[in-house]
Amino acid sequence: MSNVEIKGIATAFPEELGKWVSNEDIYNLKYGADWKTKLLDIGIDKNYIEDKWGFSKRFWVHTPGHVLTENEATSVDMMYHAIKNALHDAELLPEDIDLLISVTTTSPRYTSSTATYVGGQLGMKCASFEMKTGCASNLYAMTLGFLSLQSGLKNVLIVSAETFSKIADFNTNQVFAGGDAAAAVVLSRVEKNGSKLLLSYLDSDGHYASMYGVQGALPPTEKAIKNNEYLMLMAPKATAYMNQIWEWLPDKLYRHANIKPEDVDCFIPHQSTKKTVLLATEKANIPTEKVVNVVSEYANCGAVSSLLALHKAIKSETIKKDDLLMMSVVGGGISWGGLLIRV
Amino acid sequence: MSNVEIKGIATAFPEELGKWVSNEDIYNLKYGADWKTKLLDIGIDKNYIEDKWGFSKRFWVHTPGHVLTENEATSVDMMYHAIKNALHDAELLPEDIDLLISVTTTSPRYTSSTATYVGGQLGMKCASFEMKTGCASNLYAMTLGFLSLQSGLKNVLIVSAETFSKIADFNTNQVFAGGDAAAAVVLSRVEKNGSKLLLSYLDSDGHYASMYGVQGALPPTEKAIKNNEYLMLMAPKATAYMNQIWEWLPDKLYRHANIKPEDVDCFIPHQSTKKTVLLATEKANIPTEKVVNVVSEYANCGAVSSLLALHKAIKSETIKKDDLLMMSVVGGGISWGGLLIRV
Repeated sequence: MSNVEIKGIATAFPEELGKWVSNEDIYNLKYGADWKTKLLDIGIDKNYIEDKWGFSKRFWVHTPGHVLTENEATSVDMMYHAIKNALHDAELLPEDIDLLISVTTTSPRYTSSTATYVGGQLGMKCASFEMKTGCASNLYAMTLGFLSLQSGLKNVLIVSAETFSKIADFNTNQVFAGGDAAAAVVLSRVEKNGSKLLLSYLDSDGHYASMYGVQGALPPTEKAIKNNEYLMLMAPKATAYMNQIWEWLPDKLYRHANIKPEDVDCFIPHQSTKKTVLLATEKANIPTEKVVNVVSEYANCGAVSSLLALHKAIKSETIKKDDLLMMSVVGGGISWGGLLIRV
Repeated sequence: MSNVEIKGIATAFPEELGKWVSNEDIYNLKYGADWKTKLLDIGIDKNYIEDKWGFSKRFWVHTPGHVLTENEATSVDMMYHAIKNALHDAELLPEDIDLLISVTTTSPRYTSSTATYVGGQLGMKCASFEMKTGCASNLYAMTLGFLSLQSGLKNVLIVSAETFSKIADFNTNQVFAGGDAAAAVVLSRVEKNGSKLLLSYLDSDGHYASMYGVQGALPPTEKAIKNNEYLMLMAPKATAYMNQIWEWLPDKLYRHANIKPEDVDCFIPHQSTKKTVLLATEKANIPTEKVVNVVSEYANCGAVSSLLALHKAIKSETIKKDDLLMMSVVGGGISWGGLLIRV
């Protein structure tokens, strides 16, 4: 059934909630005003982060290494703006939405669903839930969105936000990686000429689950705070395993959908680092001009990344009607997947 | 389509992870060995909790009011046992599962999905994600399970756990309410003679979202720990609003499914308190003998409650093949819903 339309899509980086931070700003934070001299002293090339990982700037609601305060913006605050922007783009009102799926790995609350939390602020009254499965979350959420529309719903809004600045380890290079972001997409049921989800392949393997992500216990303990356990940990073993998945993931998608690399008009790989985008592009055997890359603009925004890239592809008309779009993510969990959508 | 079978269902209260605690045990904790005298002194009837709220015992992995320690069991530990028990009941192996949905409002980790976390411990490799929308979560998860099976999956496992003992406020009567529990259900696609989801009505209203649930910020702060902000807060306003929803929810389900109260063979209302079960039963106009009630056995186990009650109904043969089952929940979020299933 070709009965789904991407009715609206938007990002949110509200200036009142945070600030854009360059690599130079971070060196300044880490080493002080004479950071250039210090970097020379310790033998670090100031272009290393951009050259190797592709990050040149990111949006932050918090300054890593500083004590968290109650006044700082949260993932829910970010979601609020993304929903408003996406509804505006879709020319819909909050009451038009039948299902709100919120996606985050950095919720500001423990027991509560960020979906009702943010929906309540916008006066939304509809089915809503929060979900997560690492950076691949939005491929899962979009699949659930397509399924829900096929079951009879009219408009599904997926909103996603991350505030990695609050869990980025200031003392490692990881502080350059984590970006804060929000994005939202409205999927709507249409009678004809809509988009078709040709394939959704979703998978996971929790073998390394305990070695990846924030390690501190919830409910939180003072001891774990003192031990800096509420910071992001990326286990090299898990990262190596993720890279292995990229080796065979594109071929699996091609085989299952019975297509060839040249059939793909637009490819959105996970936007974790430049290295990942390059690896995914190579393994997918797709020319660079068909590949969306927003790593330089936003750094690694986790689950939000695929929506940020989708937003760019749509607004820049890199994706056009009837194009074949491939999205794939391998991320924390480890959880991964790929979508093939005939737009 | 009548193509879904409840292939297996199980609960988990592993003795090695926790203990059963009576109301008397809690009075003993609060007032010491001479609690009976103390209760008389302050004018509290020792049967008040059971008479008014219906709680007589609950399973606890932690003693409320005590400092949290790293060795105590988590919701993921509880899920592990529930999955094993449900797979055994379904006569399936971990590799038979195509989709694992984990449901909890009390995860032991911040960024990680409990689904990959627990799945990894069992060697499961399949699509997986964590989701939540308060106590109604499992109605949502079951709906997503039915949708996924209709899209072609063969076996979906929904696992749910709560460890409310870790967020129960020892200084209020709420300490009697919170129970820890885990349960899991396997939904499988069958060719014929399966169950049919006649109606899934899911809704939410986050108007009171900020007033309900654990208030402390995430990532956690020492200040919030010192202020006891990582304890469950139930706002009377929100509870009053929930009770209003019960006034019209059953009629809405009957109207949408075009059935009458007498068509319902088994009713599973939310198991938060005896009062809620009685209110829901009255508003649904269903005789008590058709209503499942496990409040006395487990206390309020949040999202898990509906699966605990479903497990009891199935194992006690309160639900039989071809019966019409109605499940409804109004819970934190506020999020609510109702399912009508022709078993």
